[in-house]
Amino acid sequence: MDKLTGDEIVRLFLAIATILVAARVLGEVARRLSQPVVLGEILAGILLGPTVFGTILPGGKEFLFPNHGSIALAQDAFRTLSIALFLLVAGMEVELSTMWKQGRAALSVGLMGIALPFVLGFGAARVAPDLLGATAGVSPETFALFFATALSISALPVIAKTLMDLHIYKSDFGMTVIAAAVFNDLVGWLVFAVILGQIEYGTSSASHMPIGLTLAVTAGFAVLMLTAVRWLIHRTLPWILAHASFPTGVIGFALALALAGAAFTEFIGIHAIFGSFLVGVALGDSAHLRERTRTTITEFVSSIFAPLFFGSIGLSVNFITNFDPALCGFVLLIACLGKVVGCGLGARWAKMSWRESWAVGFGMNARGAMEIILGLLALQYGLIQEPMFVALVVMSLVTSMASGPVIERLLRRTRPRRIEHFIHSRTFLPRMRAIDRKSAIDELCQTLARASGLDYARISTAVWEREQVTSTGIGDGLAVPHARIDGLTQPYVAMGLSSTGVDFDSLDGKPAQLVFVILTPPNDNGVQLEILADIGRTFVQPNVRDRALKLKSFTELLALLRTEPVAA
Amino acid sequence: MDKLTGDEIVRLFLAIATILVAARVLGEVARRLSQPVVLGEILAGILLGPTVFGTILPGGKEFLFPNHGSIALAQDAFRTLSIALFLLVAGMEVELSTMWKQGRAALSVGLMGIALPFVLGFGAARVAPDLLGATAGVSPETFALFFATALSISALPVIAKTLMDLHIYKSDFGMTVIAAAVFNDLVGWLVFAVILGQIEYGTSSASHMPIGLTLAVTAGFAVLMLTAVRWLIHRTLPWILAHASFPTGVIGFALALALAGAAFTEFIGIHAIFGSFLVGVALGDSAHLRERTRTTITEFVSSIFAPLFFGSIGLSVNFITNFDPALCGFVLLIACLGKVVGCGLGARWAKMSWRESWAVGFGMNARGAMEIILGLLALQYGLIQEPMFVALVVMSLVTSMASGPVIERLLRRTRPRRIEHFIHSRTFLPRMRAIDRKSAIDELCQTLARASGLDYARISTAVWEREQVTSTGIGDGLAVPHARIDGLTQPYVAMGLSSTGVDFDSLDGKPAQLVFVILTPPNDNGVQLEILADIGRTFVQPNVRDRALKLKSFTELLALLRTEPVAA
Repeated sequence: MDKLTGDEIVRLFLAIATILVAARVLGEVARRLSQPVVLGEILAGILLGPTVFGTILPGGKEFLFPNHGSIALAQDAFRTLSIALFLLVAGMEVELSTMWKQGRAALSVGLMGIALPFVLGFGAARVAPDLLGATAGVSPETFALFFATALSISALPVIAKTLMDLHIYKSDFGMTVIAAAVFNDLVGWLVFAVILGQIEYGTSSASHMPIGLTLAVTAGFAVLMLTAVRWLIHRTLPWILAHASFPTGVIGFALALALAGAAFTEFIGIHAIFGSFLVGVALGDSAHLRERTRTTITEFVSSIFAPLFFGSIGLSVNFITNFDPALCGFVLLIACLGKVVGCGLGARWAKMSWRESWAVGFGMNARGAMEIILGLLALQYGLIQEPMFVALVVMSLVTSMASGPVIERLLRRTRPRRIEHFIHSRTFLPRMRAIDRKSAIDELCQTLARASGLDYARISTAVWEREQVTSTGIGDGLAVPHARIDGLTQPYVAMGLSSTGVDFDSLDGKPAQLVFVILTPPNDNGVQLEILADIGRTFVQPNVRDRALKLKSFTELLALLRTEPVAA
Repeated sequence: MDKLTGDEIVRLFLAIATILVAARVLGEVARRLSQPVVLGEILAGILLGPTVFGTILPGGKEFLFPNHGSIALAQDAFRTLSIALFLLVAGMEVELSTMWKQGRAALSVGLMGIALPFVLGFGAARVAPDLLGATAGVSPETFALFFATALSISALPVIAKTLMDLHIYKSDFGMTVIAAAVFNDLVGWLVFAVILGQIEYGTSSASHMPIGLTLAVTAGFAVLMLTAVRWLIHRTLPWILAHASFPTGVIGFALALALAGAAFTEFIGIHAIFGSFLVGVALGDSAHLRERTRTTITEFVSSIFAPLFFGSIGLSVNFITNFDPALCGFVLLIACLGKVVGCGLGARWAKMSWRESWAVGFGMNARGAMEIILGLLALQYGLIQEPMFVALVVMSLVTSMASGPVIERLLRRTRPRRIEHFIHSRTFLPRMRAIDRKSAIDELCQTLARASGLDYARISTAVWEREQVTSTGIGDGLAVPHARIDGLTQPYVAMGLSSTGVDFDSLDGKPAQLVFVILTPPNDNGVQLEILADIGRTFVQPNVRDRALKLKSFTELLALLRTEPVAA
């Protein structure tokens, strides 16, 4: 039997561990900079590939990520499985019902968001094929068709993530954008599937179907998955829940189905991802799929398989030697022009305001994940060369990065402010010494004076004056003294824990064990209220209060705040 | 770059989907027969391998599970990853603190549970090497050492699962058995690691360390993992929770660590699983690992990786041609004798009653998972031949199967009875017509008469008489009319849903929308109380009541009852 040797297992496991760690670390850095995590994951792969690691330490790159042999094969198998499972999850996020609800606007945006980029891309590829580095041996029509599709497709996961971060996912605006993106994705992948079929047919690989048959089978498969199979899954799930272990039965069913779907689409000559994406859509649509099952699959796939895939994109291409500024700029320009203007006009025709219409345009402009998957496939099939692939990746990264900030500005949306943004290690006192209201406020104001550089007496006087108007003891062992301070440019929050409790004259008569002092600028745009509300929502939960009282360090406080779901 | 072709991806994905489905289905069948799921999963592999599928349809077996080429390599990579991740989870289940608490008894059971099987196994292998089919080319001492170890090791996951099923996991009895099994496992794997090191050294494979060095490095690594690394992980987790996305950050960290640990132990010449097991122990011991994270990792691994591994055990060996009844019987005899008597005596010396001592012996006798992993490795390394591997698998399956029923009998424990065991599709009425108490009872008693074959008038009179003593409307929209019926041999439960509600004279004045009629035998050993308590615990939850009212079929009812966690 062919097996991996001990040496190969060592290298394979180390390689996976390395990708996981690097992708995670850079993903977190991206998140800190308010960017989609996927950008960091891709960057990790670029650093580990020939671009940086391979240039500095070619032997190390060859040890972990060889181009040939058993390890390369095994890594390719993991990569292929990862991408199939990632698209299962992406499909599960699609809500078919929202497509119908926001019907008209979504259709208008979706159609225009395909039409304009497609026309622009096709035109550019026909007019200036050399500038775009069209590949010899691939027919100009096919190349133009690919380039047009590449510009037309959106990145549903990135768009959804951006809207969720801005807390407008469930709004009419958000649902219109999502519905348009779903429509966009389905059509885009269908077209791409046909192109791939054509290439594969040309190179006489796995499939030997004529293009028309591939198109018919693909469309038929898609329709079947979204109707009969969807209905069948919906009927089968309760049966599985009733008769198999939970949730292992459902998860196993979902994954087996995704792999079978992937195998089928791969077999008919279009890529495996299309099958698992459609399985995801059909599966995610069923109300019988429990929230907990969705969460387990999504969490595990985004912890392991997504970083494994996105982190390995950069492993095969040198992003410096293949970087062509003119090509990148040109691709970026047409891509943005087509998508922003196309979707913007589509939204405007659906009677949205100009401001909202542009926000829709920039929202749909995010490419990220899907675009890169498409580029990678095109590269594998020899449809494009490395510089074009690099240009597509750069375009995806730039458009994804721009999306959030621009929508934020256009819709004047801001991310909700939470206390963790304003509390510092120096303003957290796990053991307050104070035993009465005044000294508790003073003790916390001292830390705030040090952290903000403001005068201690002025702060503590302002807070104490406010406190004397009405007590800020809000019950449940919480007290929230606060004041607006002239000259402050950002909010500051101090938090103190008292094991004995401090009498804050609360309505429920309980002493305050968690005391927060909140300082905000004079014109604070509601940040004081937001912080108060956040404290309330978080610490209204008895188990969170209990765990808060046991905190020993600022790190543990952050761990609590960031992992505890806030009451709705 | 070496890549899988489209054709190979199709076969690989189909193969994984096939294993997942077959392992799941047979795993569920095993569960239905009150057996460990792992038995079904292993059986699935035996059916799909050369034993059955390969004999009936050699071409099909070769298509999905070839012995050579890229697919075989990719499957081996998945299998190796699966086993490493499964041992991570097995390690996470270990509670180091319980080992200390049950110290004396656990040590006594653990030591005797190793010593006697080891001595018996070593002796048998030295006295009758031919009967055991010792391999030419392997030194008799090494073979005896392996056989002795194989008999000594327990199956922590199977034992833990059996105890949980019997609801005695958290009892003193359960913790003693678990602590002994942990001790047993750690020592057993350490010895086995040394044997493997010796073989690898002999065949001059990956590692070239002398045996003494391997032993020292292995022991040093184990101690380091359980002390310094455990402490380091405990300190690092809050930092990850505070600064990385949740729970993707922790899950990524856990898996990267497990793979790095696995790579290290593989590198020093012992198997990868040892490293990921120790990482699991160190990680699982930290209180900072949230329950939700544990659950996600455990659920995903037991849904995918465990069936993938156990389902592929049977793929390489023909269990019929290599079945040697004498060998199987002999191995089974020594295995049971050594373990049951050894652990039983150990427990008795720790002052447990004879009855409990034998229960401990049979509990520790379960081999299952770990034993087979060990056998598979020995087979791969040429330490044993196929007939011995088959005998070890048979011994593991038989001892695992026997464990639960014997403990149940010795400790007179029974599995808790739940309403789903006594309700039938014919006794579930999703739309009751009745509008008052009497007619509701009559309507449900009619279904019970049909299901039980008893006289309708007799049942309904008995229930109505009991009802008139005090009303069975227990509030929250629930009513539980019940009666003990002469001549009944098992309990019967009928359940009816009423959209308008039936007035049951409840204390809270609310009409009953969920009505259960419960019939039990005259000498029912408390089953009536158990069923009443189960109804209370399940339907006290408002969201469960809401979902119950929307049920349309018996299957949906089962799905609800089996997936809804019961209030504690």
